[in-house]
Amino acid sequence: MNPNIPQTDRKRVVIVGAGFGGLQLARKLSTRKEFQVVLINRHNYHEFQPLYYQVATAGLEANSILFPLRAVFGNCKNVHIRVTDVTGVRPTDKTVDTELGPVPYDYLVIATGADTNFFNQQNIIEKALPMKSVSEAIALRNRMLQNFEDALSVETADEREGLMDVVVVGGGPTGVELCGTLAEMRRTVLPRDYPELDFTMMDISLIESGGELLGPMSVQSQTHSLEYLQELGVNVRLNTRVKDFDGRTVTMVDGSTIRSNNVIWAAGVKANPLAGLPAEVLGRGGRILVDRYNQVQGFTDIFAIGDVALMTEEKWPNGHPQIAQPAIQQGKLLARNLLRWVQNEPPVEFTYRDLGSMATIGRGLAVVDLPFFKFQGFFAWLTWLFVHLMSIVGVKNRLAIFTNWMFNYLTYNNSLRLIIRQKMPQGNLDAMQKKLSDQMEVVKT
Amino acid sequence: MNPNIPQTDRKRVVIVGAGFGGLQLARKLSTRKEFQVVLINRHNYHEFQPLYYQVATAGLEANSILFPLRAVFGNCKNVHIRVTDVTGVRPTDKTVDTELGPVPYDYLVIATGADTNFFNQQNIIEKALPMKSVSEAIALRNRMLQNFEDALSVETADEREGLMDVVVVGGGPTGVELCGTLAEMRRTVLPRDYPELDFTMMDISLIESGGELLGPMSVQSQTHSLEYLQELGVNVRLNTRVKDFDGRTVTMVDGSTIRSNNVIWAAGVKANPLAGLPAEVLGRGGRILVDRYNQVQGFTDIFAIGDVALMTEEKWPNGHPQIAQPAIQQGKLLARNLLRWVQNEPPVEFTYRDLGSMATIGRGLAVVDLPFFKFQGFFAWLTWLFVHLMSIVGVKNRLAIFTNWMFNYLTYNNSLRLIIRQKMPQGNLDAMQKKLSDQMEVVKT
Repeated sequence: MNPNIPQTDRKRVVIVGAGFGGLQLARKLSTRKEFQVVLINRHNYHEFQPLYYQVATAGLEANSILFPLRAVFGNCKNVHIRVTDVTGVRPTDKTVDTELGPVPYDYLVIATGADTNFFNQQNIIEKALPMKSVSEAIALRNRMLQNFEDALSVETADEREGLMDVVVVGGGPTGVELCGTLAEMRRTVLPRDYPELDFTMMDISLIESGGELLGPMSVQSQTHSLEYLQELGVNVRLNTRVKDFDGRTVTMVDGSTIRSNNVIWAAGVKANPLAGLPAEVLGRGGRILVDRYNQVQGFTDIFAIGDVALMTEEKWPNGHPQIAQPAIQQGKLLARNLLRWVQNEPPVEFTYRDLGSMATIGRGLAVVDLPFFKFQGFFAWLTWLFVHLMSIVGVKNRLAIFTNWMFNYLTYNNSLRLIIRQKMPQGNLDAMQKKLSDQMEVVKT
Repeated sequence: MNPNIPQTDRKRVVIVGAGFGGLQLARKLSTRKEFQVVLINRHNYHEFQPLYYQVATAGLEANSILFPLRAVFGNCKNVHIRVTDVTGVRPTDKTVDTELGPVPYDYLVIATGADTNFFNQQNIIEKALPMKSVSEAIALRNRMLQNFEDALSVETADEREGLMDVVVVGGGPTGVELCGTLAEMRRTVLPRDYPELDFTMMDISLIESGGELLGPMSVQSQTHSLEYLQELGVNVRLNTRVKDFDGRTVTMVDGSTIRSNNVIWAAGVKANPLAGLPAEVLGRGGRILVDRYNQVQGFTDIFAIGDVALMTEEKWPNGHPQIAQPAIQQGKLLARNLLRWVQNEPPVEFTYRDLGSMATIGRGLAVVDLPFFKFQGFFAWLTWLFVHLMSIVGVKNRLAIFTNWMFNYLTYNNSLRLIIRQKMPQGNLDAMQKKLSDQMEVVKT
């Protein structure tokens, strides 16, 4: 294997990760003749992360929130996309190592984002369901739908409730949006799909270790989101920490328990830094310490942007929130600054422009904090809808999502509740087979 | 586990399989107060099989051709859907055995369809790609797209061609439609997505053992489909049989070879009869011998319909073609006849009404044989489109498919070319883990 990136006399910018930050940077650089862009991503698509919960709850098809990178960069001859895993960086050789082989760089931009933080709780890692990738969202959807199928066939009420009940851990936007949607499904589509099941038996619990939901939002939004969820019948427990989960029962630090087979873990994230960076550049939550130009401490040719980067401003002493906007804004500015560097102009300092934040609780209910104005309810939901639609790349998908949502809204449509089990790719089976026979060799000898 | 089907004083009709035949029958019986319907299917959806090739070639989303059974039967209290595998039938106990446990029946209808026939060629089973389920179609799509990604990174031209070239075995509608679509992609979307690859190197071959394509169609349609494919640059080889495939090279019976990593096997089907039936009721291709009332030979309470059934008429001495129409028509009539039996009226004999057949070769090209009229080209394609759209259940999906197709047609849209790898469900991993440790136990002792 060989990445086969052609040699040119342009400066090569290697971007690792095609999330909000990496994609924005690559798009801005794609039109500049000064650079050759190598975009390395694990999948051949960009994922629109804010809508994972819609995929998990069968409100949207996965492909509505995924954007093939090759479609985005179809006409850009100076962008080279490679779908592979990066194994590490060797700063002294100015090279990143990938599963396809080494890729030398002039500038390296680390935009690898963040992943679920299970806080090293082995039982939770093994038994709880995360939701930080589209395949995890699909797995969650399949699991939930399969649970209802299984609930038809179990022998005891205890088993049935264990399958139907859901515990969501983490009262951030993901947890709140997921609980709101599940509570609505319990009221509408699920009883229609499963007339043989009694959905008054289905409990939805939201566990939050802090004293309020939607931590970084306004008190007004926190209060309203709690009210909305309680009206929808979600059992919200604040100031509560999960200690353990054995696949059947969730145990809290205070000793109380909830009987449920399903724990969805949305309690925190940790950054995905690259192997090969010195330990002293890693800060809290594994984030890479960068200056106001997104330059990694001690390097002039390595940058980090978005969730994986930790940049402090006066207003943000602990770094920016790990959401789309800082990543997008940093990607944009870094494109400008890279150009300024090669043109020997001084770079511009980054300042985060907080555009506000919002969360949706159910169909027609949301909370919105704008810098000078906060509001809740149906108009907030319309705002949320509009902002999310507008931020989605590509006309076709925007229309498809809009049509889809409107249709769902009007009809409680249920054509998406499919349990599609993908066959394992032969390669994986071969690898597993090999592992099996290797282990058996070990046992034999 | 227990299927938990409530006992009523209605006659219980157990239908195994929710393909065209089983679904039709269940829908017709769902409105009759005389029957309790138990519909057992491996998945929670009906698959619209004629469009698998569109999913495989990223022309349609999988969910556009899948219909959740619970949505179809949302308001029918007398239909009980169970998503499980049937392991066999015990006619003397009037019971089918499922993974959930035994289900007694008054009437049993076997509508289990057909699967790929590899003719017991072990190498082909292991290395070739079938396309008889939506998950196989998705696997095929992922494999093809991953091949192009891999082709960017291999070291030699031979390896690159091996990845890009495709050999399709079987010149029926599936093989013809697949080759036509692949040839169009080679000309349009693929060069745009992969500007670094040279698509004049991509060979598409269609291998057919008979002397013509689309065996059962008119000579006129056979000739035109061959011409269309050759114009699109497909290398069609008639009167040729595949002998072996080692994952890199296809070998024919005549000793000639084609270098390709990709063999798509569409060369034949075999029926999926149930275990527990006496051997003498099985005919050619594993099909279950039935009389003109779809009654299985020797039983008054067991029926078979569709691809799995072998009914002969004067005009059809070898049974009906294994396509949607006979299954639909048999399902419809069997619903009527079941009612006539319980009302002590004589049943009506089945006669297959051949509505014609058609195949599409590419965007805007098709061949159509109607009973008294045969035509080809763009108008045939419009006919094909119309007929397929009209046969699809459910307004939402019909509109979605139509929009999608029109959009693709006008823009060569490429938002579907996603390689989504699903995480293996934990249950499967557990099962594999158990198998692993069991095997290791065996080795140890």
